[in-house]
Amino acid sequence: MLDFLFQLIMNSLEKKLKEFPFHIILGSASPRRQELLKSLGFDFIVKPTHADESFHENLKAEKIPIYLAEKKANAFVDVLKENEILITADTIVWCEDKVLNKPTDFQEGKKMLEILSGKMHEVFTAVCLKSGNKQITFFDTSKVYFKKLNLEEIEYYLMNFKPYDKAGGYGVQEWIGYIGIEKIEGSFYNIMGLPVKQLYEQLITF
Amino acid sequence: MLDFLFQLIMNSLEKKLKEFPFHIILGSASPRRQELLKSLGFDFIVKPTHADESFHENLKAEKIPIYLAEKKANAFVDVLKENEILITADTIVWCEDKVLNKPTDFQEGKKMLEILSGKMHEVFTAVCLKSGNKQITFFDTSKVYFKKLNLEEIEYYLMNFKPYDKAGGYGVQEWIGYIGIEKIEGSFYNIMGLPVKQLYEQLITF
Repeated sequence: MLDFLFQLIMNSLEKKLKEFPFHIILGSASPRRQELLKSLGFDFIVKPTHADESFHENLKAEKIPIYLAEKKANAFVDVLKENEILITADTIVWCEDKVLNKPTDFQEGKKMLEILSGKMHEVFTAVCLKSGNKQITFFDTSKVYFKKLNLEEIEYYLMNFKPYDKAGGYGVQEWIGYIGIEKIEGSFYNIMGLPVKQLYEQLITF
Repeated sequence: MLDFLFQLIMNSLEKKLKEFPFHIILGSASPRRQELLKSLGFDFIVKPTHADESFHENLKAEKIPIYLAEKKANAFVDVLKENEILITADTIVWCEDKVLNKPTDFQEGKKMLEILSGKMHEVFTAVCLKSGNKQITFFDTSKVYFKKLNLEEIEYYLMNFKPYDKAGGYGVQEWIGYIGIEKIEGSFYNIMGLPVKQLYEQLITF
């Protein structure tokens, strides 16, 4: 009965999300980012930007995705209005003071998973929010502890999941994340590619 | 080219999973557990067992799901063969030395989320593997840190997600897990209801 009454009166947050005063443009082709943003409850359209993902080798750790998220925002071709928010993001895997990018093939994927095996690494995701008159960039970091992976596990994963579009050559939400990860410290969704808790806070207070 | 060759020769792990010598029976009606077990790569059938979920109040923390996972296994009606493995599991939320069960309605759900708000709690999941001649029980624990939730967030979540089938009144894979969780320490999938890394290890060495 109480449930029913509550359904009739629209919750104030429900109203806030429905009447969100900005049009959101997700500047990313990643299906994982699209899925995560959708689950936050916002409406948005997808318009991937096309920036080359090179960066200066002096950049370290979180500096890399911050630079690339902003580079992706700057590559947006249309002029943003004041009531439009463009979201761009970049995720890197950082292990033993080195960045692991997307592997180009089986051999490189194998090498990356062998590096991550039995060790802790960090995942940094930076997000840039940009409108006609404002820009905010923030990042989150999570620690991931892989168990010692054996060769048949690495090969099985690469053959069946082909993670060549994924930083560090793995997806935390895929088979290798199920059987291979001892523990994480931080946000799971940040490892997937979007720090949703911070993003939500930044969007509703933009 | 190398990829193609690897596809032709079946990976040894692929073979091991395909030729797994046990028939797996998942004794749980939880769609989350079904999804997680499927992602591990095993074939199985679902036959929920029906045990009442009462336990003695002297039981604390991990002792509760261990007791309930074994109780669920013992409630299985058919006789298990040596080549059958029954999987049963139980998950509890443990906060300030108290267990939070499944909330029965909106008011209880609200009370639970108010308890979890702004605090760390632990999630324990115990799993029992039982065949005709062997039984193993193990558990995993994860820490979850909720931000301070406000009333409109709690009400929005309860109204839209009705988490009345979930221990502690929330799903880590739902909206409240996106916007409300500061960080976790441990396994994300254990919080969802199945410690998949340990389960995988126990199954392939059963």
